[in-house]
Amino acid sequence: MMNLERLEKLFNTFNSYTDSGEGINRIAYTSMETSAKHSLMRLCMSKNMTVRMDEIGNVIARKEGKNPLLPAIAIGSHLDSVYNGGKYDGLAGVIAGIEVVTMLEEENILLEHPLEIISFACEESSRFGVSTIGSKVMTGSINANELRRLKDANQISFERAIEIQNLSLENLELAHRWPEEFKAFIELHIEQGPVLDYEGLDIGVVQAIAAPIRFEVNLYGQAAHSGTTPMHYRKDALVGASELILNLESLALKESVYGTVATVGVQNVKPGGMNIVPGEVFMLVDIRGIDMDSRKRVVDGLYDSIELLKKRRNLEIQVEKISEEKSVLMDSTIIDKLASVCEKLEYKHIKLSSGAGHDAMYMSKLTPTGMVFVPSHLGISHNPAEHTTMEQIWKVINVLKNCVIMIDREEIK
Amino acid sequence: MMNLERLEKLFNTFNSYTDSGEGINRIAYTSMETSAKHSLMRLCMSKNMTVRMDEIGNVIARKEGKNPLLPAIAIGSHLDSVYNGGKYDGLAGVIAGIEVVTMLEEENILLEHPLEIISFACEESSRFGVSTIGSKVMTGSINANELRRLKDANQISFERAIEIQNLSLENLELAHRWPEEFKAFIELHIEQGPVLDYEGLDIGVVQAIAAPIRFEVNLYGQAAHSGTTPMHYRKDALVGASELILNLESLALKESVYGTVATVGVQNVKPGGMNIVPGEVFMLVDIRGIDMDSRKRVVDGLYDSIELLKKRRNLEIQVEKISEEKSVLMDSTIIDKLASVCEKLEYKHIKLSSGAGHDAMYMSKLTPTGMVFVPSHLGISHNPAEHTTMEQIWKVINVLKNCVIMIDREEIK
Repeated sequence: MMNLERLEKLFNTFNSYTDSGEGINRIAYTSMETSAKHSLMRLCMSKNMTVRMDEIGNVIARKEGKNPLLPAIAIGSHLDSVYNGGKYDGLAGVIAGIEVVTMLEEENILLEHPLEIISFACEESSRFGVSTIGSKVMTGSINANELRRLKDANQISFERAIEIQNLSLENLELAHRWPEEFKAFIELHIEQGPVLDYEGLDIGVVQAIAAPIRFEVNLYGQAAHSGTTPMHYRKDALVGASELILNLESLALKESVYGTVATVGVQNVKPGGMNIVPGEVFMLVDIRGIDMDSRKRVVDGLYDSIELLKKRRNLEIQVEKISEEKSVLMDSTIIDKLASVCEKLEYKHIKLSSGAGHDAMYMSKLTPTGMVFVPSHLGISHNPAEHTTMEQIWKVINVLKNCVIMIDREEIK
Repeated sequence: MMNLERLEKLFNTFNSYTDSGEGINRIAYTSMETSAKHSLMRLCMSKNMTVRMDEIGNVIARKEGKNPLLPAIAIGSHLDSVYNGGKYDGLAGVIAGIEVVTMLEEENILLEHPLEIISFACEESSRFGVSTIGSKVMTGSINANELRRLKDANQISFERAIEIQNLSLENLELAHRWPEEFKAFIELHIEQGPVLDYEGLDIGVVQAIAAPIRFEVNLYGQAAHSGTTPMHYRKDALVGASELILNLESLALKESVYGTVATVGVQNVKPGGMNIVPGEVFMLVDIRGIDMDSRKRVVDGLYDSIELLKKRRNLEIQVEKISEEKSVLMDSTIIDKLASVCEKLEYKHIKLSSGAGHDAMYMSKLTPTGMVFVPSHLGISHNPAEHTTMEQIWKVINVLKNCVIMIDREEIK
């Protein structure tokens, strides 16, 4: 039963936990975030769930089903925010878990499997420069020594920061969980991109989470006087960089059908004088896609166009790959179930990929994992202007609830 | 008579006046520059010239001819350098004056007209942000109040800086000179561009000094997540800026025959994150040419391509003209005389325009003015690596000497 007031009250309650500053400031491992977690734990206890916080600060609330020996169906996301964040990023997925439990209760549906709500710790990289720490720890994807190296902008170490919140790296492995414990995991999140909003759709079923391959590109030409150097004698590093940027755009546009994207977000020009032909340009290139062949075609095209540029413009160009991650596929059975629920409910949906990382990436190492997106107004995110209506969120929660019932009754794979 | 040792000794003498730091540091109105001026004055006195320093610090050395009532033929350039400058910029033109006087003496040639060597004060804008101050004052093109507003990077006012060197703005108008005083002015300077060097030529005869028209361009798109924003939903300000830069290049290339050039030397990208589609780009555009129609075609083309970009890429683009100067023509009779001397001497020459400003721009307001360029190795200038051989400089001085003799005997116009 659609109860938008109840839903809005939940958002208001959790968003009252925010430090001062524009928008939402519920930064990982601050007392404000810990208070929000405690609020979640109290709420879940009131719904007869067993509740615990693990070593890294993940909150796990569990509603037993008819058969306590069966693996759990889990729903979750995160409560922490970026600095000056929005009201929906992360929180929507945690509230979705609460709503599903409440709706099943209202409808007197008792699942066969246990149902878990997981609020992952420190999903945002804003404080320590590393994202999805809670799901990485839960899946054994990061260890205590790696975490010990982290510091925030105030030089507070990760270890000290969590100690202040009564957590410890001492027995971190106790936070690990195992495939046998889960039947499935589903994360609900706002899209953080404009596709659903612009296309007027109700829900996005995530097929894969795209991971970036990143390059540092340095172009070296010859700095020269802008007045005294004829056009055909120039080795203008910025004109070369501009050509590279346009080539990269058309390479990615050709791969649009695969959702591959390419971006130059950082570019520095040297020496940077009004009357000096640029001698040097530094730029960072980020290429993402869920189709690894498509992504590779863009990368190959980048290298080809660099080789051409070197010759044609007589520039020295250095390319260094600075990171390369593989994209993560969501479980095809769960994707199909989510899509069939959308069709039954007559919600307008599309299958799409996520360009941003999420806890679902790591949970997919443990268990069949799915992800659903709620439309984001204009795609604005990590910003106080982030906006989504309660009705839009409710519809996606409704899909989630119906899918949980299906997973409870049917096999996966 | 070619005497390269004597010439080199002059360069070494004047370049011994340099403050510490890489390359030459003979900054305007420093004690080091004043010492160099005094050295010039002593040298000229030893050649039986009358010598004075005017109110703004221009050094004027005068060798009387047979008829003291005739107007002077003047040769000159400047002794000040940029920070970390080269050995030839400015100095070559002052030494040229000394060499012409010496050679005429050796050859027992007494001119009809007086011959003046002028070393202009503060030609470089490095210290006070304003260039060619000595020639501007001499030609009444700048006044004391405008100079009073200037400060250097250490907050020393222009007035205080010249006071330390025993100069004053008090009676600045005494430094003005009048058309009746001159028959002609010729400046010798290194090219500061690569044309003569790349083309293997001996000398450049300057037809005109090109002045820049400058624009500030701001492009506004929409900052967005690089992973979650599909290519066709982007309003990428940097991709737009790149297109503008390439358009500007092809506009200028089409005008190559007129020597028109266009440069984007400064570009800033915001917000400037690896994973953020650029929402804003700031850039400075510098367009120069001696043919005002050609320059206008590039400017018009810039505006046209901005209008197209606005529509096609859905960007907001603001253009502001920040300065516009007119180019200055050198005197056609002097150009012809210089060219005919080159032909007689069988020196390989071309007529070309100067993309950089020079004191000759202002002297042309007073008297028929010409300018000759010495090849600059690779066009490198304002840099310790600035290089030109003594033989190359001597050849151009030889042209200058022969042209002075011609001007002394023939009418101008």
